[in-house]
Amino acid sequence: MSTVTPMNGEEFVAALRALSSRYWGTHPFHHRLHNGELTEYELRMWAANRWYYQCNLPQKDAAIISNCPIPEIRRQWLDRIVYHDGKTAGDGGAERWLRLCEAVGLDRDEVLDERHLVPGVRFAVDAYVTFARTKPWVEAVASGLTEMFAGHLMQQRVADMLANYAWIAPADLAYFTNRINAVSGEGKATVDLVVRHCVTREQQEKAIAALSFKCDVLWSMLDAIERAGVKA
Amino acid sequence: MSTVTPMNGEEFVAALRALSSRYWGTHPFHHRLHNGELTEYELRMWAANRWYYQCNLPQKDAAIISNCPIPEIRRQWLDRIVYHDGKTAGDGGAERWLRLCEAVGLDRDEVLDERHLVPGVRFAVDAYVTFARTKPWVEAVASGLTEMFAGHLMQQRVADMLANYAWIAPADLAYFTNRINAVSGEGKATVDLVVRHCVTREQQEKAIAALSFKCDVLWSMLDAIERAGVKA
Repeated sequence: MSTVTPMNGEEFVAALRALSSRYWGTHPFHHRLHNGELTEYELRMWAANRWYYQCNLPQKDAAIISNCPIPEIRRQWLDRIVYHDGKTAGDGGAERWLRLCEAVGLDRDEVLDERHLVPGVRFAVDAYVTFARTKPWVEAVASGLTEMFAGHLMQQRVADMLANYAWIAPADLAYFTNRINAVSGEGKATVDLVVRHCVTREQQEKAIAALSFKCDVLWSMLDAIERAGVKA
Repeated sequence: MSTVTPMNGEEFVAALRALSSRYWGTHPFHHRLHNGELTEYELRMWAANRWYYQCNLPQKDAAIISNCPIPEIRRQWLDRIVYHDGKTAGDGGAERWLRLCEAVGLDRDEVLDERHLVPGVRFAVDAYVTFARTKPWVEAVASGLTEMFAGHLMQQRVADMLANYAWIAPADLAYFTNRINAVSGEGKATVDLVVRHCVTREQQEKAIAALSFKCDVLWSMLDAIERAGVKA
């Protein structure tokens, strides 16, 4: 038993929120993306590589369900798999990402066969899925709390991309506009879940470490994507 | 690359079906259950221990989804989680099993807190979940092909239990009557899935080994349950 006093809920949430500066919203590549400074090639490498992240999310979420013995939470988390995979083929977040890929000039096939996928993105995404498979479910849930920081960034992204890339239409950005609704409320339900199930100081610290790890996953993806966009 | 010729579909399915004699339908404990020879205490130990199997099925199925990169199959397999956990609390296969537990004289609490759970059942069920978490998804799917053998056994069970245990009402057996519908067609869709995705001889043999393993899981559960029913 730890003798260290747990944080109260407010302190714990503040400690999670304090990681916002490490969220990929501040990554130089995202700044260039928003400012309209990416070449078409860079945009394509960004979209094709991030696809690997998007298409792994259902497996990450299923790992959380597999590790969770609480039916209510499993029932709630199942919606995330449906969100990404869709209720039927051609529906869902993964499909919306593919639409964005096509808008920036990629064929669907060259996205699906992962020919543009660079090792740094693969390692980071695989590390995230492995984390969800091997850690207690509440830590894996906490790692997803980057959704606390996502809403504002995505709203800005839609405005900036429409303003700065003439060939992108509002419908092409359906992934983001749809996702803005999904993460509205800054992930409050997920934050509440983590607060409710991390009651010892040790559990709270593991949750903070999990969110920190996830910030690293995303940041590292953008480092690799940035490099991939530089033609040899 | 293996140089051994794969079985054709018919041979492969026949090899899977040949394992039916190892299915727990022929276990002496099931014979006694069907013949009305179990004491109330034995029935309670059976229901309370098998609960551990039932309540782990959603996590086993989520592991399969977590390991499966094919959205169509994930979408299809998701229904199994919903089947057991229910769309809402108080619904679903797990709930129907709890109803049966109550019918044989157990309090819901003494089932949920697992006080009657014996080690042999825990080990067998945990081995099954670990199998699903650590093996390729198609092997884990193949391990579930005991549903090929389940329909007939469950129809017989409903008839025999109603005939032989006066205190059990038809509604108490909702788990089985509902499940009979779910496995009607002898798991044809699942068999087809396994046949389609096990194309090399090696993959076919792994699928057969997976089903053999699952027969062992169930058989071993009944061995332990049989022993649990003998009062010290």
